[in-house]
Amino acid sequence: LRTGFPEVIWSPGKTPDQIAQIMEVMRLRNPVVMATRIEGAVYAALQSRVRGLRYYESARICAITPPEIEPRYPGTIGIISAGTADLPVAEEAAVTAELSGFHVQRLWDVGVAGIHRLLNNRHVLTSASVLIVVAGMEGALPSVVAGLADCPVIAVPTSIGYGASFGGLAPLLTMLNSCAAGVGVVNIDNGFGAAILAGQILRTAEKLRLASSDS
Amino acid sequence: LRTGFPEVIWSPGKTPDQIAQIMEVMRLRNPVVMATRIEGAVYAALQSRVRGLRYYESARICAITPPEIEPRYPGTIGIISAGTADLPVAEEAAVTAELSGFHVQRLWDVGVAGIHRLLNNRHVLTSASVLIVVAGMEGALPSVVAGLADCPVIAVPTSIGYGASFGGLAPLLTMLNSCAAGVGVVNIDNGFGAAILAGQILRTAEKLRLASSDS
Amino acid sequence: LRTGFPEVIWSPGKTPDQIAQIMEVMRLRNPVVMATRIEGAVYAALQSRVRGLRYYESARICAITPPEIEPRYPGTIGIISAGTADLPVAEEAAVTAELSGFHVQRLWDVGVAGIHRLLNNRHVLTSASVLIVVAGMEGALPSVVAGLADCPVIAVPTSIGYGASFGGLAPLLTMLNSCAAGVGVVNIDNGFGAAILAGQILRTAEKLRLASSDS
Amino acid sequence: LRTGFPEVIWSPGKTPDQIAQIMEVMRLRNPVVMATRIEGAVYAALQSRVRGLRYYESARICAITPPEIEPRYPGTIGIISAGTADLPVAEEAAVTAELSGFHVQRLWDVGVAGIHRLLNNRHVLTSASVLIVVAGMEGALPSVVAGLADCPVIAVPTSIGYGASFGGLAPLLTMLNSCAAGVGVVNIDNGFGAAILAGQILRTAEKLRLASSDS
Amino acid sequence: LRTGFPEVIWSPGKTPDQIAQIMEVMRLRNPVVMATRIEGAVYAALQSRVRGLRYYESARICAITPPEIEPRYPGTIGIISAGTADLPVAEEAAVTAELSGFHVQRLWDVGVAGIHRLLNNRHVLTSASVLIVVAGMEGALPSVVAGLADCPVIAVPTSIGYGASFGGLAPLLTMLNSCAAGVGVVNIDNGFGAAILAGQILRTAEKLRLASSDS
Amino acid sequence: LRTGFPEVIWSPGKTPDQIAQIMEVMRLRNPVVMATRIEGAVYAALQSRVRGLRYYESARICAITPPEIEPRYPGTIGIISAGTADLPVAEEAAVTAELSGFHVQRLWDVGVAGIHRLLNNRHVLTSASVLIVVAGMEGALPSVVAGLADCPVIAVPTSIGYGASFGGLAPLLTMLNSCAAGVGVVNIDNGFGAAILAGQILRTAEKLRLASSDS
Amino acid sequence: LRTGFPEVIWSPGKTPDQIAQIMEVMRLRNPVVMATRIEGAVYAALQSRVRGLRYYESARICAITPPEIEPRYPGTIGIISAGTADLPVAEEAAVTAELSGFHVQRLWDVGVAGIHRLLNNRHVLTSASVLIVVAGMEGALPSVVAGLADCPVIAVPTSIGYGASFGGLAPLLTMLNSCAAGVGVVNIDNGFGAAILAGQILRTAEKLRLASSDS
Amino acid sequence: LRTGFPEVIWSPGKTPDQIAQIMEVMRLRNPVVMATRIEGAVYAALQSRVRGLRYYESARICAITPPEIEPRYPGTIGIISAGTADLPVAEEAAVTAELSGFHVQRLWDVGVAGIHRLLNNRHVLTSASVLIVVAGMEGALPSVVAGLADCPVIAVPTSIGYGASFGGLAPLLTMLNSCAAGVGVVNIDNGFGAAILAGQILRTAEKLRLASSDS
Ligand SMILES: Nc1ncnc2c1ncn2[C@@H]1O[C@H](COP(=O)(O)O)[C@@H](O)[C@H]1O
Ligand SMILES: Nc1ncnc2c1ncn2[C@@H]1O[C@H](COP(=O)(O)O)[C@@H](O)[C@H]1O
Ligand SMILES: Nc1ncnc2c1ncn2[C@@H]1O[C@H](COP(=O)(O)O)[C@@H](O)[C@H]1O
Ligand SMILES: Nc1ncnc2c1ncn2[C@@H]1O[C@H](COP(=O)(O)O)[C@@H](O)[C@H]1O
Ligand SMILES: [Mg+2]
Ligand SMILES: [Mg+2]
Ligand SMILES: [Mg+2]
Ligand SMILES: [Mg+2]
Ligand SMILES: [Mg+2]
Ligand SMILES: [Mg+2]
Ligand SMILES: [Mg+2]
Ligand SMILES: [Mg+2]
Repeated sequence: LRTGFPEVIWSPGKTPDQIAQIMEVMRLRNPVVMATRIEGAVYAALQSRVRGLRYYESARICAITPPEIEPRYPGTIGIISAGTADLPVAEEAAVTAELSGFHVQRLWDVGVAGIHRLLNNRHVLTSASVLIVVAGMEGALPSVVAGLADCPVIAVPTSIGYGASFGGLAPLLTMLNSCAAGVGVVNIDNGFGAAILAGQILRTAEKLRLASSDS
Repeated sequence: LRTGFPEVIWSPGKTPDQIAQIMEVMRLRNPVVMATRIEGAVYAALQSRVRGLRYYESARICAITPPEIEPRYPGTIGIISAGTADLPVAEEAAVTAELSGFHVQRLWDVGVAGIHRLLNNRHVLTSASVLIVVAGMEGALPSVVAGLADCPVIAVPTSIGYGASFGGLAPLLTMLNSCAAGVGVVNIDNGFGAAILAGQILRTAEKLRLASSDS
Repeated sequence: LRTGFPEVIWSPGKTPDQIAQIMEVMRLRNPVVMATRIEGAVYAALQSRVRGLRYYESARICAITPPEIEPRYPGTIGIISAGTADLPVAEEAAVTAELSGFHVQRLWDVGVAGIHRLLNNRHVLTSASVLIVVAGMEGALPSVVAGLADCPVIAVPTSIGYGASFGGLAPLLTMLNSCAAGVGVVNIDNGFGAAILAGQILRTAEKLRLASSDS
Repeated sequence: LRTGFPEVIWSPGKTPDQIAQIMEVMRLRNPVVMATRIEGAVYAALQSRVRGLRYYESARICAITPPEIEPRYPGTIGIISAGTADLPVAEEAAVTAELSGFHVQRLWDVGVAGIHRLLNNRHVLTSASVLIVVAGMEGALPSVVAGLADCPVIAVPTSIGYGASFGGLAPLLTMLNSCAAGVGVVNIDNGFGAAILAGQILRTAEKLRLASSDS
Repeated sequence: LRTGFPEVIWSPGKTPDQIAQIMEVMRLRNPVVMATRIEGAVYAALQSRVRGLRYYESARICAITPPEIEPRYPGTIGIISAGTADLPVAEEAAVTAELSGFHVQRLWDVGVAGIHRLLNNRHVLTSASVLIVVAGMEGALPSVVAGLADCPVIAVPTSIGYGASFGGLAPLLTMLNSCAAGVGVVNIDNGFGAAILAGQILRTAEKLRLASSDS
Repeated sequence: LRTGFPEVIWSPGKTPDQIAQIMEVMRLRNPVVMATRIEGAVYAALQSRVRGLRYYESARICAITPPEIEPRYPGTIGIISAGTADLPVAEEAAVTAELSGFHVQRLWDVGVAGIHRLLNNRHVLTSASVLIVVAGMEGALPSVVAGLADCPVIAVPTSIGYGASFGGLAPLLTMLNSCAAGVGVVNIDNGFGAAILAGQILRTAEKLRLASSDS
Repeated sequence: LRTGFPEVIWSPGKTPDQIAQIMEVMRLRNPVVMATRIEGAVYAALQSRVRGLRYYESARICAITPPEIEPRYPGTIGIISAGTADLPVAEEAAVTAELSGFHVQRLWDVGVAGIHRLLNNRHVLTSASVLIVVAGMEGALPSVVAGLADCPVIAVPTSIGYGASFGGLAPLLTMLNSCAAGVGVVNIDNGFGAAILAGQILRTAEKLRLASSDS
Repeated sequence: LRTGFPEVIWSPGKTPDQIAQIMEVMRLRNPVVMATRIEGAVYAALQSRVRGLRYYESARICAITPPEIEPRYPGTIGIISAGTADLPVAEEAAVTAELSGFHVQRLWDVGVAGIHRLLNNRHVLTSASVLIVVAGMEGALPSVVAGLADCPVIAVPTSIGYGASFGGLAPLLTMLNSCAAGVGVVNIDNGFGAAILAGQILRTAEKLRLASSDS
């Protein structure tokens, strides 16, 4: 039912052999096949087994793709992250969105403790059709962003932090309690899921546009 | 920044006098003013203080509105609820969406323990541009719906249940862990926030359509 | 008091030597002796120490058994799992049930996000006398299954997932709050316990049948 | 799909009028209609609205029933409770089971702190085909019972207790961690659900008996 | 040891008679005596029992004070709150600080969802010697403030919110995980404690100044 | 103030060199010096550094002791454990008690799922002056023991278990909620602390005896 | 088995009629019968139903007793409490101990924030044979006391506090983690249980004394 | 905005190469650059890459500093720790404070179980302008210290402990519930943050002094 999106493998608990096999089956029915949560050593093992495999290192994603991946839908997915350590999750979102045919604009390292970096880059918030906001520790960024932007905001808590972060529980609760309405939250570290939701939003927009131009 | 949406008051902890006063100020700048979480007794007290006030009982919403509220955006927000007791939250979402200018289609009482009622109403899932799914107790409905639908899904856990529901924690966790990607979660019982997010999605779609027809 | 069931060793925290010794003692009084939670390396160490040992790899079970293990009770235990990663727990249940003398029917990979695979295999639900349903992440499968089946359902949450799964807490709560009555829940990852409970149910049935034919 | 069981209403959050209305509809299609969690005052209000209504006070159940309710299935459901305060939950289980056509044997007040009262009543454990064990505070009774009995055991934690009971969390965890295999757990205070599960077990037994005598 | 601060009574669980008695004893040794968490009805009962009692309604504080209370220490305590509902806690802090002899500057209703209201009032942050920041729901305000200010920040989470706020746990965790260093956190709703800590900071400053001018 | 007890080192986070050094200092003022939580490898490293060091392997304790350690106080500390995996904690208690000059009687492997093994060894309960009861998983043993015995009971939860044991939280809560009064609980896995408390109880007895014979 | 202790009723969830009835039965076999958690209104209702009933108001205990209750065992139970609000729990312990035949010495309001009041009353710690220490909020008092005293310490956390106290969870964890060995913890607000445990300790002492003088 | 403080890198999740690179950039704009949470092996790798790097082993801090670091502000930061195992956190606070230009006085190993060591060192409490109190396990030390001192107290819970410490949750809750007002709490193990807050307090004092001498 998610035709148009890549085939995806969630790798934890699977051997390289199993991943390679599933990828080979999937490539028969879909031009884009991707596997998430791939550490460097697993990629090394996959490389010889799967022809034409690309590795997006900081996103920890392996993918089989056509030579060129062009955006196929109008609109931009803005992806914003709070700290350097949140990057792998933010990149998981970005690469998933790009492999799914969407245009992505990245804005890294604009945590709320230095609000001016965010304010100086407000054009990213304004020009996006949907925003993904990634933050660990206290996870306050999505609230601030949702207050500044006028589009749907998807919040991704990360497990970055220590002590009373309790593995990402702290930013998760922060985001669920956001006093800025219009924020949807996904699981801790789930950059992938955020990208799929953002993609669904742009596809819905495209369907409505086609429907309106039909009539 | 949420121009186009109603002005909203969150009523808990405010006296009828305070609510009435804020409403009078807000009506000067916005044709639609609403207050959420209004019990019957509070409405009774507000009625004499605020001219032209409507009460949406099961949604627990009071509103000042123009005589007619017509959908102003293309697309439909499908709202689906699992049990009878989830109705107030589902109606909070529905009325908020309608007051915000969106077309709503309701589908009540289609919990997963009787999956056929949901399957027999699949047209609701197919015809919606965005879905809000409201469920308490185990909160499994959004996963099933997201597997059947091809549009963004907003999941609203409710505090309906007892014992190991822990005030809505159980369905909240269920929804965050949904194995169906493309699901965004809001706070427990937050029908209001789900409607605003759904509205933002349809407005984004409309902006993209207008932009494309401009060019 | 559980005469008729195999002798069982829970291996965590025991050395191969200890496991081997206990097995040798147990085999003197029971034709079937099994050890759960045995990783490959431990099996390798046990192999030379215990004569005639079998290894059920994906179930992580080692067992001493008679050459043939035939079902000794009427009825079928249907075992259903949601995701590939839940397989070790589902197989722990399946192998335990088979070693205990019950007939098992497996149905793997029928998670709620693709409800049609489950619906297309409804005969498994109809023909079973008791069902074990294994699921991680959001753990919604037992509710759906209990709504479709007319027999006792045993729900097994797994620790598969991440973030807000909190080591299996999420599916555990989901299952305890199931709005479909007639569901009994066991500990996270406890495929073994689920099989023993299912076995007790079929043995109770057999005792009642014998009692009725006596009279 | 649960044909043969009564129709059931979960009353919290419903007005007496609503409960009465649903009961009238349900009685058209089922000879037994019951409503759980009915306090005395609600029963008083229902009495005049619903013809022929019975009230099971300590079980907090209202029901429409045929004049006589006889067991329709072979086998006995033993119901055991730990403390006096657990009685409402234990009676909810007992009355639900009886209204569903099963034979029930009650054993109250046999908590583990006075183990001899339980040991002196072992015939209840021996003669039952399935056992429901209800306990609050530390919830240790199901483990002891499961060690003594040779039949399926359904454990019901209750919210009876204070302090570190955390609303029934303590006995819930106790029961899930039971070192006696063959125990299935239901939600805190869910006597109703335990009875339905026990009923399903006896119905499965009956189906297997009929199948075997057919062949 | 806290000479210079008022005598304080924490009222929950004390009768008006007990509170009045303690106040009479305390006024013999301290010119300022205050009682926190005093609801209107309790004040009504105290009024006739304690001569010269003032009531600070929104702060829920009763106090015996000299006719004039002037700041006795240099420096300003800036108190900032996020939402209207946080006011009682913010006022508890403000009144406690004023009764203790400090100069207070209030800035209400500058939640992060509308960051510009905060930015437009930056002079409050700049001119304060120490800041108390009060916020419920997601509790993100102290992080933003600490990033903008160059003085000690005391964060007070409130129990305002619902659902996944879990009685103030959410903003508490947010504040403890603040990525802006230099933030100290007090208990949920503890405006009183925040004011005492802020007061200690200004007193420390004054002691150091006196010491330096001595030498 | 705990004169008469051994000097004790809690080893986690200390290097063998540090442990050896502290032991050498302590032996100058106390004939018995012990270190807890010593794994085999650490003992190997300590052996050459500390003269006359003994290793109690299953208790994970290293100690410097006089050649003979005789009980110096009247009375017996009965130590009872539920499962094999609880042994290291039970032995930590036993060895600490013996090194502190008390007489110990061990009773291992008498978990509640097989209540008869406990009942068949009731003389251990009867002859002890104080009982330490060690149990993991559901932690039900102390309640049963306290019901059978007429002496102080010290309950020690262990981290043995998995899933909903949550690292020993389950048996900890069980023990705190014990419906058998007269049970004191110590931290998870804290066999050492239980032994010190038991020792204090026997020393108090001895002091009272001496006081009475003095007079 | 607890012969020598009073008969005890835990009143929550019981009607005055039920309590009165149970008391009448119990008085036939025990000279002391007590009921805990009795609010003033319940006592009022009991007074006319039970002859010779005494009410210990701050302890919330009703009791039938002989005219004189004299200590029957050597030794003193010292009971120490941290704050005024902890008094009902401390008195529950004190009255239970006195009704059980023990000599009690009270020391109220010696919280750790004013350590000198405790130090100035050290004779209470020195002269007691066993100590019960009652504290809410942060619950630090038992650690300090155990460091100063040389006898068994029983720690009772109370639910006094707010916010991050989480109903007594905070002091409960504090006490379980006490770095002063020799501390046993009971349930939140369980003054009764603490007194029974303290009583068991003094009875054990007496038994050992009698045994030694016999021989 | 924190001009005057060192540049700081939080090292977890960064490679030595990345840390070295960031340090080189930072040293261009600040004479003091520090990196926290540096294990020995990481320092070894950094040493050859960064010229003039110092390693503060027990604080786990690497820093580039001027040859001499002298206190630049009046006042003393007293740092007090409860146990030996808390030392790395206490040293993180101490070294951060010293590198930031403050005078530090250390007082180690004065846990509440031996209160006299603390009382014998009261001069440290008296002479400090602000106190940082570091404690794991039950975390009771800050309450006692705040009761004895007359200056701001910053409490740092540590993850030292086991079992019911739950990774530092126990001392965190203890400190938040401190009945001694005037205590601010930082995240578990966050010695760094405590030092920055203490530094802000002394800087505020200095600013007020300069302002007053200006006028
Ligand atoms: N039911 C609701 N749940 C969550 N947020 C709400 C709800 N109703 C109103 N709000 C939000 O609360 C804000 C108003 O809060 P207040 O200023 O306290 O009245 C609005 O702007 C909404 O974003
Ligand atoms: N006490 C109870 N606990 C749990 N589930 C119940 C209880 N009583 C009724 N139910 C379930 O709730 C369903 C009816 O819910 P409702 O449609 O909201 O009345 C029934 O089909 C039962 O499965
Ligand atoms: N609102 C408050 N929150 C926290 N602590 C308070 C509050 N009001 C008073 N206190 C503290 O409670 C102490 C008095 O407690 P009590 O002796 O029970 O009246 C005072 O010394 C204050 O430190
Ligand atoms: N040990 C620490 N604990 C908490 N925060 C820290 C610590 N060390 C550095 N930081 C903060 O982390 C920031 C740097 O983070 P990063 O950009 O990820 O290196 C610094 O500005 C500090 O505020
Ligand atoms: Mg916005
Ligand atoms: Mg879908
Ligand atoms: Mg069914
Ligand atoms: Mg059994
Ligand atoms: Mg700052
Ligand atoms: Mg006993
Ligand atoms: Mg001591
Ligand atoms: Mg002080």
